[in-house]
Amino acid sequence: MKSNCRKIRGHGVIVGSLKSGEKNCITDVEGVKVGHVTLDEPLEGGERACTGVTAILPHGGNIFKEKVVAASYVINGFGKTTGLVQVNELGLLESPIMLTNTFAVPAVTQGALEYMLQNNPEIGDSTGTINLVVGECNDSQLNSIREFPVKSAHAIEAIQQATANVSLEGAVGAGKGMVCFGYKGGIGSASRVISENMHTFTIGCLVLSNFGGKIEFPFDKYPAIQTKVQGVNETPDGSIIIVLATDAPVSDRQLLRMAKRCGIGLGRTGSHFSHGSGDIVIAFSTAHKIPHNSEDPTFTHTYMREDHPLMNQLFAGAAEATEEAILNSLSQAVTTIGRRGHIVESMFS
Amino acid sequence: MKSNCRKIRGHGVIVGSLKSGEKNCITDVEGVKVGHVTLDEPLEGGERACTGVTAILPHGGNIFKEKVVAASYVINGFGKTTGLVQVNELGLLESPIMLTNTFAVPAVTQGALEYMLQNNPEIGDSTGTINLVVGECNDSQLNSIREFPVKSAHAIEAIQQATANVSLEGAVGAGKGMVCFGYKGGIGSASRVISENMHTFTIGCLVLSNFGGKIEFPFDKYPAIQTKVQGVNETPDGSIIIVLATDAPVSDRQLLRMAKRCGIGLGRTGSHFSHGSGDIVIAFSTAHKIPHNSEDPTFTHTYMREDHPLMNQLFAGAAEATEEAILNSLSQAVTTIGRRGHIVESMFS
Amino acid sequence: MKSNCRKIRGHGVIVGSLKSGEKNCITDVEGVKVGHVTLDEPLEGGERACTGVTAILPHGGNIFKEKVVAASYVINGFGKTTGLVQVNELGLLESPIMLTNTFAVPAVTQGALEYMLQNNPEIGDSTGTINLVVGECNDSQLNSIREFPVKSAHAIEAIQQATANVSLEGAVGAGKGMVCFGYKGGIGSASRVISENMHTFTIGCLVLSNFGGKIEFPFDKYPAIQTKVQGVNETPDGSIIIVLATDAPVSDRQLLRMAKRCGIGLGRTGSHFSHGSGDIVIAFSTAHKIPHNSEDPTFTHTYMREDHPLMNQLFAGAAEATEEAILNSLSQAVTTIGRRGHIVESMFS
Amino acid sequence: MKSNCRKIRGHGVIVGSLKSGEKNCITDVEGVKVGHVTLDEPLEGGERACTGVTAILPHGGNIFKEKVVAASYVINGFGKTTGLVQVNELGLLESPIMLTNTFAVPAVTQGALEYMLQNNPEIGDSTGTINLVVGECNDSQLNSIREFPVKSAHAIEAIQQATANVSLEGAVGAGKGMVCFGYKGGIGSASRVISENMHTFTIGCLVLSNFGGKIEFPFDKYPAIQTKVQGVNETPDGSIIIVLATDAPVSDRQLLRMAKRCGIGLGRTGSHFSHGSGDIVIAFSTAHKIPHNSEDPTFTHTYMREDHPLMNQLFAGAAEATEEAILNSLSQAVTTIGRRGHIVESMFS
Repeated sequence: MKSNCRKIRGHGVIVGSLKSGEKNCITDVEGVKVGHVTLDEPLEGGERACTGVTAILPHGGNIFKEKVVAASYVINGFGKTTGLVQVNELGLLESPIMLTNTFAVPAVTQGALEYMLQNNPEIGDSTGTINLVVGECNDSQLNSIREFPVKSAHAIEAIQQATANVSLEGAVGAGKGMVCFGYKGGIGSASRVISENMHTFTIGCLVLSNFGGKIEFPFDKYPAIQTKVQGVNETPDGSIIIVLATDAPVSDRQLLRMAKRCGIGLGRTGSHFSHGSGDIVIAFSTAHKIPHNSEDPTFTHTYMREDHPLMNQLFAGAAEATEEAILNSLSQAVTTIGRRGHIVESMFS
Repeated sequence: MKSNCRKIRGHGVIVGSLKSGEKNCITDVEGVKVGHVTLDEPLEGGERACTGVTAILPHGGNIFKEKVVAASYVINGFGKTTGLVQVNELGLLESPIMLTNTFAVPAVTQGALEYMLQNNPEIGDSTGTINLVVGECNDSQLNSIREFPVKSAHAIEAIQQATANVSLEGAVGAGKGMVCFGYKGGIGSASRVISENMHTFTIGCLVLSNFGGKIEFPFDKYPAIQTKVQGVNETPDGSIIIVLATDAPVSDRQLLRMAKRCGIGLGRTGSHFSHGSGDIVIAFSTAHKIPHNSEDPTFTHTYMREDHPLMNQLFAGAAEATEEAILNSLSQAVTTIGRRGHIVESMFS
Repeated sequence: MKSNCRKIRGHGVIVGSLKSGEKNCITDVEGVKVGHVTLDEPLEGGERACTGVTAILPHGGNIFKEKVVAASYVINGFGKTTGLVQVNELGLLESPIMLTNTFAVPAVTQGALEYMLQNNPEIGDSTGTINLVVGECNDSQLNSIREFPVKSAHAIEAIQQATANVSLEGAVGAGKGMVCFGYKGGIGSASRVISENMHTFTIGCLVLSNFGGKIEFPFDKYPAIQTKVQGVNETPDGSIIIVLATDAPVSDRQLLRMAKRCGIGLGRTGSHFSHGSGDIVIAFSTAHKIPHNSEDPTFTHTYMREDHPLMNQLFAGAAEATEEAILNSLSQAVTTIGRRGHIVESMFS
Repeated sequence: MKSNCRKIRGHGVIVGSLKSGEKNCITDVEGVKVGHVTLDEPLEGGERACTGVTAILPHGGNIFKEKVVAASYVINGFGKTTGLVQVNELGLLESPIMLTNTFAVPAVTQGALEYMLQNNPEIGDSTGTINLVVGECNDSQLNSIREFPVKSAHAIEAIQQATANVSLEGAVGAGKGMVCFGYKGGIGSASRVISENMHTFTIGCLVLSNFGGKIEFPFDKYPAIQTKVQGVNETPDGSIIIVLATDAPVSDRQLLRMAKRCGIGLGRTGSHFSHGSGDIVIAFSTAHKIPHNSEDPTFTHTYMREDHPLMNQLFAGAAEATEEAILNSLSQAVTTIGRRGHIVESMFS
């Protein structure tokens, strides 16, 4: 039951043809920060807190005052992610993206809200309100979600701990109790760098993986991956939250087009977007910062021309980074013991 | 500053040509229940709890175990309503519809979740999770939303107090602090009954009105409505949540078509779906109860033929009931004093 | 059976509060041109060609080489409009917008295609293909659509005849055989001008009206409109194509938001978006011309800030111009005799 | 330059884990018929008609009088497919699905329309109009699309020739001039059969493949496929139309969910849904026939319960059948000489 944690590249698996960024992590997109709070402790009656919170910050500044262009795409909507209505209408993100377990959405929303109110005394007073984005997967196989172990303070802590370092992966933060293809999953990240002439752009992806039946994983497609372990999941239901970041100057519509390509990467890992899965992409671009207030009735932005070959590279990058991030969530995850003694083993045990 | 509260029909305004139900309320749809919890108390420093929670229950049974067909439609998405992703994917509602203020969404979601968990010990344990639907408007003109006066217990109480009686209207429940066209708004409800040959169906609507600039209200269109009061809102931003219920046997797609017609009613009251407004419709049909579990891989339902004249009547009914529910939210609302002494007067003072 | 054709303002009806442009026509948006070809001749066996083609050109140049930002919105989709898939994906319009009867869509598409190929020898050869947008309504009450009286040459002629003058209205072009609320409808147009400080923008609307049951028209809402005529339509089914133009620098997403507000105007005329109606909005902005080819992988545009009050004025303008354009299609339409002696009278006979 | 045409299974490639139907063709879905008209002749000046028409009939009866449940899904919308607006609104298909080249859409729409009018004298006379669905890809590499070689009569012929036999594949019908990954593509088909207890359902897929850059095809993923040929396409732009059929009793919403899974299959063949590609799915279920007219205001249908394991099998089947249909379009296609002597070689030459 020992594990063998490293990025999937360390196991000899290369995904796609584009090169990865330096950290092969969403934090390769300049300014992006990731923070985790992991809960792992016994509760009464054999129950267990085996869960956590992950925060992704588009930049180090005040995201309410300097919003970023954003888009969301629902691959399959059996999920409870909040905040997408406004992201879709306005094409903007004005809060950190929070990830956690399904029943912790209220607590984590509350925590992120309190954090933002503290840093922006005008919200809900002299200016409007704020839109929080919280993604979730159901970790009830290992975590006692009915016990509500996640508190609002954990969300604040995850935001505060966010750094631009390479993100921890596997059974950390919101990924602590997640299960992917019947093996231990959770947080995974990867990146791609594309360039042509003088233009270089980075695409970063971070996933919270919790989907897939054990028979779906295509071991034959990844001959470098072998396992002595049997996955636990008979059924493919579950979820995945995919956070996509880029520094390419894309509009919200272009970003939505990129977000749709994350489904390619998900499908290539063996998923069929199962009925009971909340497979959701939240994407943002750091290229422009949009001020909350402005005297000027107009603004001027530079965007990509979509017929330029770079656009297709951005699409391929989104697909490749998603596939690799999912594999990283598997390869980095340690075997984990959860509630009632349930064990989910690392594929790489 | 006295008020003159009654349904708009009591003021001589007739909306449309279809007849209303007995109660002229969403509870005319058999089985539907509505409950309110209203908060109205001073807080420190001139702040005030002037807000509340409203719960709409599609039927009196266990809504998780007996789901109903549902649809949502975003007229304008500057809002924070939760739960729509799954409603859209599955066409089902499995929880009460909760309404509250913007910053109370986490507390109310938590309360509704706890209520459902208590009544369904298998959720998050031996079966999957549950999707909560919570709509909101920003009542910060009158309510100190930054103080979080709404607690999760208030949500539970609103559910427990729900009855099939005619719903209270105006400054009650989630409507306590809402402002509509610069006048006091809040909860309003209306219904329509359509029939042809042996078929009779009811359409009920309940709104939480919090939108519109004072110059937008079309006094010339409703000559029976006169006011001595000046509306307070210079700008039209705000929100409206529209809950549409019917006992007509419509599919989720047909229900979505009906939900879109609520925008007609909203537009007829003078709204232009302003930029800063979260104008959202949540619709359900009580005609079929869909069991959470079933051995049978199929089910058999009766639905409306869309080319039948009844379908156009359902569309007209959705538009008319929405328009009248908004007018009722105005005519039933009493002048209200909120935080820092802010007063919003009844249009009918 | 004489008629009394003029804009609805000539009858004393004022719609909304924003001021109209000089021509109160879509051609108030600088550069926009409109052309009509009207067919009115007997065919064998009592059948009659009572139909036509209308072309709307966003600008006087080569629209394939200089595309404009565009969006479409389907209010109700019982219609056969072509070209929306690509408009939605790319947010661009690269052809004239053509209007005609339902069964003339192939001929008109063919004609518009031939026109564009003639002016752009590289299309389908050294560059890609081209997306044609053709809207339609069913004029079979007056026109013998099964006889295919419209030929591809008529489409070319409509494009060639397009001018920036005030558009003809009523029973002209594609409007020749259309019926609205049981009265003679067809082409109608209106415009709005909004301004604040140094910014002035125009919103133009042109409709092809062919919807509504006779009992739906709200004569009580427009006391200035009185009629001695009985509308012919018992059922409300039919269609309306709404073309919205603006010189405001809006993105495709912002344009979509404007397009949605056209439904407000439609609803205010009495429509309930009936089941059998293809109610479709096609919108474009002339503020930016996007070249078909460019070496540069990026472009720089100025767009509206959506929180500026001008945005809500754009929304109101879209609603008002739509409502007034529909009324103009009624007030300008002459009583028309079609196939098999069917007569549809002007509301203003 | 000889070819080696057979289904990809004949080359030893097995896609997925579900078993295929008897014919491994969309015609395994009972009642479905496919017809092709292929054009291959020299035109003046080195130009060439190298194109055609393919018709897919959901059943052998009168599809206008007995409609089927349908859905469409736009994977990437750089395409000119017609008829989707109404399919999306009503969830019904009432015409054959026609496939052809981009500039032949008007002629093929006209032909299909004439065919339907001939068989239904009431259309456009005593009843409403009809919605035609025509998908297209741009075959201008091999076919002189500017010459309009396809005529409306070819569409009628394709419908009339449709049979329930195993469909021809490769360079036939609409596939005659198509290019996939730089190799000869075109028509391909495959099927899957799923079952559990007493329930057995078939999923059939037919594609018109015309997408992909030569470097995108994953030869390493399909070791059984080797080629001596160099693909011709540097850029990935192009299109694919995917027609999905099933006899499973799915609603339009469920069918849409299945249609989305076709994108998984497309992504697994190496596509990244490139910018310039019209990647569109049109899906239908033959389980229910919906009469054009009915006295009854309601109807009763049996549908799948989505939480049943069969639903996930339907999803997997849609993905697998799409991937295999694309591979079949490659393996069955012969090297083809088109306009100006352009040659596109079979991958299996």
